[in-house]
Amino acid sequence: MSSDRLFYLPLGGAGEIGMNCYVYGYGPRDQERLIVVDLGVTFPDMDTTPGVDLILPDITWLEERRDRIDGVFITHAHEDHVGAVGHLWSRLQAPIFARAFTANIARRKLDEHGVPENEVVLCNAWPEQITAGPFQVGFVPVAHSIPETSALVIDTPGGRLLHTGDFKLDRSPVVGEPWDPDVFKAIGQSGVKALICDSTNVFSPEAGRSEAAIGLAIEELVQGHAGMVVATTFASNIARVKTLAEAGIRAGRSVCLLGRAMRRMVEAGVQSAVLTDFPKTVTAEDAADIPAENLMLIVTGSQGERRAASAQLSRGKYLGLQMGEGDLFLFSSKTIPGNERGVISIMNAFSEMGVDVVDDTGGKYHVSGHANRPDLQMVHKLVSPQMVIPMHGEHRHLREHVKLAEGGGFAGVLAPNGTVVELQGNAPRIAEYVETSRTYYDGNAYVGAFDGVIRDRIRMALNGHVTVTVIIDEEGDVLGDPWCELMGLPERGSSNAALVDVLEEDLGQFLGRADDKTIRDSDKLDEALRRIARKTTQTELGKKAEVTVVVSRLA
Amino acid sequence: MSSDRLFYLPLGGAGEIGMNCYVYGYGPRDQERLIVVDLGVTFPDMDTTPGVDLILPDITWLEERRDRIDGVFITHAHEDHVGAVGHLWSRLQAPIFARAFTANIARRKLDEHGVPENEVVLCNAWPEQITAGPFQVGFVPVAHSIPETSALVIDTPGGRLLHTGDFKLDRSPVVGEPWDPDVFKAIGQSGVKALICDSTNVFSPEAGRSEAAIGLAIEELVQGHAGMVVATTFASNIARVKTLAEAGIRAGRSVCLLGRAMRRMVEAGVQSAVLTDFPKTVTAEDAADIPAENLMLIVTGSQGERRAASAQLSRGKYLGLQMGEGDLFLFSSKTIPGNERGVISIMNAFSEMGVDVVDDTGGKYHVSGHANRPDLQMVHKLVSPQMVIPMHGEHRHLREHVKLAEGGGFAGVLAPNGTVVELQGNAPRIAEYVETSRTYYDGNAYVGAFDGVIRDRIRMALNGHVTVTVIIDEEGDVLGDPWCELMGLPERGSSNAALVDVLEEDLGQFLGRADDKTIRDSDKLDEALRRIARKTTQTELGKKAEVTVVVSRLA
Repeated sequence: MSSDRLFYLPLGGAGEIGMNCYVYGYGPRDQERLIVVDLGVTFPDMDTTPGVDLILPDITWLEERRDRIDGVFITHAHEDHVGAVGHLWSRLQAPIFARAFTANIARRKLDEHGVPENEVVLCNAWPEQITAGPFQVGFVPVAHSIPETSALVIDTPGGRLLHTGDFKLDRSPVVGEPWDPDVFKAIGQSGVKALICDSTNVFSPEAGRSEAAIGLAIEELVQGHAGMVVATTFASNIARVKTLAEAGIRAGRSVCLLGRAMRRMVEAGVQSAVLTDFPKTVTAEDAADIPAENLMLIVTGSQGERRAASAQLSRGKYLGLQMGEGDLFLFSSKTIPGNERGVISIMNAFSEMGVDVVDDTGGKYHVSGHANRPDLQMVHKLVSPQMVIPMHGEHRHLREHVKLAEGGGFAGVLAPNGTVVELQGNAPRIAEYVETSRTYYDGNAYVGAFDGVIRDRIRMALNGHVTVTVIIDEEGDVLGDPWCELMGLPERGSSNAALVDVLEEDLGQFLGRADDKTIRDSDKLDEALRRIARKTTQTELGKKAEVTVVVSRLA
Repeated sequence: MSSDRLFYLPLGGAGEIGMNCYVYGYGPRDQERLIVVDLGVTFPDMDTTPGVDLILPDITWLEERRDRIDGVFITHAHEDHVGAVGHLWSRLQAPIFARAFTANIARRKLDEHGVPENEVVLCNAWPEQITAGPFQVGFVPVAHSIPETSALVIDTPGGRLLHTGDFKLDRSPVVGEPWDPDVFKAIGQSGVKALICDSTNVFSPEAGRSEAAIGLAIEELVQGHAGMVVATTFASNIARVKTLAEAGIRAGRSVCLLGRAMRRMVEAGVQSAVLTDFPKTVTAEDAADIPAENLMLIVTGSQGERRAASAQLSRGKYLGLQMGEGDLFLFSSKTIPGNERGVISIMNAFSEMGVDVVDDTGGKYHVSGHANRPDLQMVHKLVSPQMVIPMHGEHRHLREHVKLAEGGGFAGVLAPNGTVVELQGNAPRIAEYVETSRTYYDGNAYVGAFDGVIRDRIRMALNGHVTVTVIIDEEGDVLGDPWCELMGLPERGSSNAALVDVLEEDLGQFLGRADDKTIRDSDKLDEALRRIARKTTQTELGKKAEVTVVVSRLA
C-alpha cells in the first residue's frame, strides 16, 4: 500500500481557459489505474492557428496507457469540457460517464463519429457513486451556466478528492440545480485531501450574482422597446435563453430561436427533462410574417462568429428576417478576450442599419457562470481540504488562486498542463512533468501543433509566396529561363519593375554562372534558388517571401 | 458668393478609431480650396491584414486635387493623426502646419522619407491664426494624452468651424496645457457654424478624470513593492511617463526608459520645451548594475507588441535586464480592443516568471485621454454651434454622438468616411459620397486594400497552398508526371495515403484522358489542373487549397 501513489495530471485547461482534460491516477507507480475528467476543445484564432477548425488536447500520453483507463467523466456539456469526445473516443475506447443532459450532448457528438450511444453511461447525482477501478466517483450538482453541471467527488484508497469543474455559487440559477453549501460542507467533513478548483474568475473581486438577478432588467428592456428585439447569448446557457424567452412572452411577443446550436441545446434540455416549462416558440418561417414590434428573436453568435445568426442578421436578411431602424439588439453575454474585433464589427454593422445595440458593459444583462474571488474563498473554507490545486485558468489565474488559497491557510500548488502532482503525502509534491501539446482539427484532418503545417501558413500570410520553376535538360543544362509565380505579393517593388521580371532576371543570372556541380546537386540547387528568391523579395519589397522551388530534370 | 460652398469630408477616422484624415473645402463647386486636418495611420491585424506594417488613408481623391490644397494641419503627434505624413507628403506636396512638439515629431517622420524639415511650418497657439487660402486656422490648446494637442478654429467666409481633434476636459494634465472652458466659450460666442467633435468615448457614462488623479496611486504602488518595478504605457503619453518616473524617483529608485519610441518622445518633448523638468534617468547599461529593489523601468509595448520592450522582458533577459520572482509589472494603460491576446500572453509569461502583474482593471493606474459622454455634452453647450458633426469614432460612436447632440437640441449629422457634408446653409446637408479606401504599407511597398494581395495571403493562411507543375514537350504531349509541392497542408488526408501522391495520381489521370485541344489551350489547362487539385484537397482534407499551376512548354 505504501508503494501506491495518487496523482493529478492536467493535460489541458491548466494554463489556459478552455480545452479541459484532467487525469487522476492511483496504484503502484507506472501501473496506476487512470480516470479522465473532461475531454474539451478550445477555439482557434487567426493569429496562431489560421484555418484550424477546433483545437483538441494531445492525448498521446493517455493513448499509450489506454488499457489502464477505467473511465472518462464529463462534468458538463460545454464545448471546452465535452467537445473532444467524438474526435478522441476511438483512441481511448473507455466508457464515458455523465449525467442525463450532458450524456445527451455527448451522444450526439459520438454519433457524428459513428460511436454507439451505449458507450455513454448515464449517472445519477450524488450521493450515488460509480465505481471505476479503484475510484468511486460521484456527480455533485453545482450551479453554472448550463444544466446538470457537476463537481466530482473522487474517492480513492489514497483519500477523497473534490474536483469542482466549472461552478458558481448561485442559489437561484433559473435552470439547473442551485448551489447548496450544506452538501459541500458535508463532503468536506469526511475529509478532503485535495480540492481541485475552477480558477477562471479569481481576478473578479466581487461575489458573483445570481442568474435570477437579471430577468427583471431584461424584461424592462424588452418592454421599453417599440421595434423588434433580438438577443444573443451562449447557445448552451439554457437558463439565459429561458430568461430571455420569458421576458419576450411577458412583453407580449412571439419568441423565435435562431441558430442550430441553440435549438439543439433546448431540444437536449427537453429530452433530458432538465427544461420543463420553456415558453412556446415560433419557427423562423412564421416569425417572418409577424410584425417587428410583436417579435423577439433569441439567436446564436454572441462571440461574433461569422456564420452564426447574429452575424448573418448584421449583414442583412436572414431566413426572411431583417432588422432595421428602431430595432434593438442585446448582447446578453460577455465578449471572451480575443473575440472583440468580431463582436465590434457586428455592432457597427447594426449601427449602419440604425439598430440600437445594448451590451453587458453595465453588468445589467449578463452574469458570469464562474465563482469569483470571494466565492472561491468561501468554498475553500467550506470544504477545508488538505490542499488546493487550482485548475481551469491561464497561468496567471492559477498563480493568483494559489496565492489566494495560501492566504487562507491552505497548501496550494501551481500545476500547469503536464505537471504530475502526487497527493498521497500530507502536502502536494510535483513528481515530474510530461510533455503536453495540442492537436488541430483542420478541415477533416488532425494536425499536431508542432508539425510545422500551421507555422507555414502563418509565414505565407505574413510574407506571401513565390513559386520558382526551373527545367534541367538531359545533358544537365538549364533549359530556357526560370519561371516565377507570385501569390499574396505586390506586383512591383522598390525598383518599380515587375517583381516577377526582377526575380526571373536574378535567378537566371545565378543559373548562368552556376557550375555543373551545383546544377547536378538537387538539394544545393534548390537551396540556392530559394536563397536568391528570398533575397530579391527582401530587396524589392522589404520582406523575405516564402518560396517553393520546383526543379524538373528531364530524363 | 451664393455659389460658394463650404464642406466637410472625412477620408479616415469617421467610421473607425484611428487613421484620422479630414478635408475642409471652400469655394465655387469643384474649384473649392482645400485644407487637410491630420494624416494618420491605423494598425494592421492578423485577421484582416496579415503581414502589413501600417495602414494609411487612401488619398487618391486629394492627390487628384493637390493644386487646390492650401495646407495640412496636424492637431497632435499621435500616430493616428501624424503617422502618415512621411509616407504621403510627396503625393500632396502641401505645407504642413503644426505646433512645436507636433512639428518635431512630424519632421522626424518626413526626414525618414528625405523630405526637408522646412516643409513643416511652426505655428503659435490661438489666438494667432494662419492664413491658408480662404481659411484662417488657429491652434487652440486642449488637454489630451500628448503635449500641445490642439483643437482647430477654422474661420472661413462661410462661417467659423471648430474641429476639436482628440481632447479631454483635464484641468491638471501634468504635461501639456489644461482644459480652459473660457476659451471654448469665447470661441463659441462669436458664433460657430459647426462643431466637428471627437466621439471615441461617447459610450463612457462618467465624466473623465484628471491625469493628476493617478499619480498618488502609482506612487503608493511603487513604494509598496520590494522588487524591481516595471511600468508600461503609450510611449507618446509623456505626462504618464513623467508621472511614472516621478513616482519612481520619490520611491528612491533609479529610473530607466526602455524602448526607442519612448526615448524619442521624451527627447522631442525636451527639444520643443514642453517637457522641462523630467527626472534624471539612467541608461539600460547602467540599470543592469543597479539592484532590482532600487530600479524602476518605464517601457514600451503596452499593447503587447511582440518586438517592444514589454514583450522582450516577458521572454527573458533584455539589454542585460531580467525580471523575476517578487518583481512587479504595471500596465498603466488600457488595452485597445483587438490587442487583448497579445497583452494576455505577456501577462502569462510574466506569471510564469513569478512576476506580479497589475493592470488598470480598477481604473487606479490609467485615465483616458478622451472626453466622455458628459464631457461632450458640456462642450456642445459651451460652444453652442449651429450643428454638431461627430468625428473620430466607429460607426456606432458617431451614431450615438449624433443622438447625444440631438438630445441636447443641436442639429447632428452622421457622416462616415467619404461623406461630403455641405455646411453653408442653416443645417448640414449631405451632398454626395466619394469613394474611400485604405493603402497598406507592406514591407517597403504600398498595396491597395482592394488589390487582392492581402486577400490571397488570408486564403493561403486558411487553406494552405499547393504548387502543381507539368511539362509539355515539343510535340504537345505531357512529359512525365505532374509534380506537386505542399505548403501549410497536412502530409496525409482521409485516404491515409500521402497527399502529394493522391494529387499527382488524380492530376496524372486527368492528363492521360485530356484531349489535344485542352493540352494546347494554356488557360483551359491551367484552370482544369487547378480545379482538380482543389477538388482532391477537398476530398482528402475537407478544404480547398490555394493552387499555383506552372505548365512549362518546351519549345
